[in-house]
Amino acid sequence: MTSTTAITASTIIASQPAPSDAILAERADVLAHPGRYRVLTGDRPTGALHLGHYLGTLRERVRLQDAGVPTYLVIADYQVITDRVDTSEVAASIRELVLDYLACGIDPARTTVFVHSAVPEIGQLMLPLLSATTLSELRRNPTVKAEVAESGSSAIGGLMLTYPVHQAADILSVGGTLVPVGGDQLPHLEQSRAVARRINERYGAGQVVLTPPQALLTEAPRLLGTDGRKMSKSRRNAIDLGASEDETARLVRGAVTDSLRHITYDPVARPEVSSLLLVAALCTDRTPLEVADEVGGGGASALKVVVTEAVNEHLRPIRARRRELERDPAVVRDVLRSGVERARPVAAATLARVHEALGLSYDLGLA
Amino acid sequence: MTSTTAITASTIIASQPAPSDAILAERADVLAHPGRYRVLTGDRPTGALHLGHYLGTLRERVRLQDAGVPTYLVIADYQVITDRVDTSEVAASIRELVLDYLACGIDPARTTVFVHSAVPEIGQLMLPLLSATTLSELRRNPTVKAEVAESGSSAIGGLMLTYPVHQAADILSVGGTLVPVGGDQLPHLEQSRAVARRINERYGAGQVVLTPPQALLTEAPRLLGTDGRKMSKSRRNAIDLGASEDETARLVRGAVTDSLRHITYDPVARPEVSSLLLVAALCTDRTPLEVADEVGGGGASALKVVVTEAVNEHLRPIRARRRELERDPAVVRDVLRSGVERARPVAAATLARVHEALGLSYDLGLA
Repeated sequence: MTSTTAITASTIIASQPAPSDAILAERADVLAHPGRYRVLTGDRPTGALHLGHYLGTLRERVRLQDAGVPTYLVIADYQVITDRVDTSEVAASIRELVLDYLACGIDPARTTVFVHSAVPEIGQLMLPLLSATTLSELRRNPTVKAEVAESGSSAIGGLMLTYPVHQAADILSVGGTLVPVGGDQLPHLEQSRAVARRINERYGAGQVVLTPPQALLTEAPRLLGTDGRKMSKSRRNAIDLGASEDETARLVRGAVTDSLRHITYDPVARPEVSSLLLVAALCTDRTPLEVADEVGGGGASALKVVVTEAVNEHLRPIRARRRELERDPAVVRDVLRSGVERARPVAAATLARVHEALGLSYDLGLA
Repeated sequence: MTSTTAITASTIIASQPAPSDAILAERADVLAHPGRYRVLTGDRPTGALHLGHYLGTLRERVRLQDAGVPTYLVIADYQVITDRVDTSEVAASIRELVLDYLACGIDPARTTVFVHSAVPEIGQLMLPLLSATTLSELRRNPTVKAEVAESGSSAIGGLMLTYPVHQAADILSVGGTLVPVGGDQLPHLEQSRAVARRINERYGAGQVVLTPPQALLTEAPRLLGTDGRKMSKSRRNAIDLGASEDETARLVRGAVTDSLRHITYDPVARPEVSSLLLVAALCTDRTPLEVADEVGGGGASALKVVVTEAVNEHLRPIRARRRELERDPAVVRDVLRSGVERARPVAAATLARVHEALGLSYDLGLA
């Protein structure tokens, strides 16, 4: 859930211009013709999901799924080792992730939830994709650039350096044609598009070997954590989806606000208060202005009561379902198993198609 | 069969010092205790093999196999796309390679001959291995360095850049513990050793997850082609194993020599004549000095007759067997199929062991 999540929509509204050749799918067209698309999205398994993930991306994924768009959800476990050695919490995080998905409405019958490491064909697809990538492209990737700036060009790890390519492999292996992203993540997707185009140009003989994925620009709400900074698990300023109602109340009560008595929605001048208004609005299907009007002169304490109620009310059925799911010892395993069983043949077929185009396909008479 | 072959023994005798921590297996110990080792060797499929390959590496592979060392022979088809786009001859080259292997004595019942692209677990193993590698290490690799010097740092392709890691994946995935190399290729093997050690240190908890492979230094004879330069398929100065006896005679007759009538073995002052003497010696199990004494004052033409006879005599049973094998339409496919069928479970077990150590192993209840 850090900067390298990348194939989840960002929680920051796009500010920079999109790359000239990014092709953005219109949400309306997607909803009107769901069968024309295949969504690929995913998460790094670094812990349970919080309210920011839910309101920012997960809810949108469920909407796309429910609209009938075939959806693949990759749990990008290898991404954890791009920038850290410690993997002791990956397995537990995967469990939490899957419980969160299911509780929020991801339906494993319609959404294929799979773990990257369990699909060897994704790693193998990296080799042809790497052949269609240059070092300078890798270094232009924003995540790689940031890592180089931090740790120095030489010390950067090989998995971090090639991260844009294994992300492309995640997307292309299961034939993802639509990737919901925040605007800051368009350059990431551009790399996946570039390698797909290059493979097609070099080896396609006029046919499409790999479909360059389109971006579905998801202008996710800019939510702040309880300390007024960007909501993030690692900053411990987020409300976990699975938190209790009391815990939620306590966290909201402790949130940073400002000293103005009258509550108004002004994201620039009053970011903390506006973020709280936005949370309440998103949970109650209203606009932040409507929520601000309701609170009026009640001040921060009245606002926090409204927010707490809105969040707890909205999450109540989700949390109840989550508690129920937690009691079933087999549910997570069943989801992951069926996901791998569905994703592997798709990834194997993609790899076979790429091999065929590349002339690396030999009749071995294998079963 | 170019510079990136790397896991074949070199045809250049080692001149640079070995890396300080390279561990070299003693050939005597290997032959005395073949069961303690597992040889991994291989070729890029870029065409049929020639006399230099046979005398330089292939004969030694057969000797190791016949001594009872379990042997894996990877056909590194992905390596073809590290530095070129054209793959139109890969499949035909693989066929020629396998026919050459079999004709020279590689026994598919004892040596597992497998194609990299048909074993997805090798590509997947690259991801953890990449996490244990830095960009500066990749750039220190001699092949990568040469490529950077030629094409510039930015333009270098991602597959060329990560080439030391997919070579490591080739070796480590099938548990290769012994890699016959020329001295100039020790740095390549050092990278495989380094990633294995690093995975063990980070994730092994005192256990060996991946055995760092040892080098078996093979001081391959320095053979020159018919034009006096290093024997190489791309220079069209080599005698293919499958060439006819007449073709062989014609090629040897056209070989560059010098104008001194008396034939002597002097690799420094008379490289072309000495290389021919060496070829005849290797084919007749004598020393080059003995062959020189036999030719004496007969001059280059007498030398060439001796060489032609020696080569044709030595290769006669190999060529006969090759012609026989060519008539069997199923033989190549059968070798490759059984090789993949044996290599895949081994590579899958390696990947599972790495995942287990990394904590990326989840009980999915898969069949």
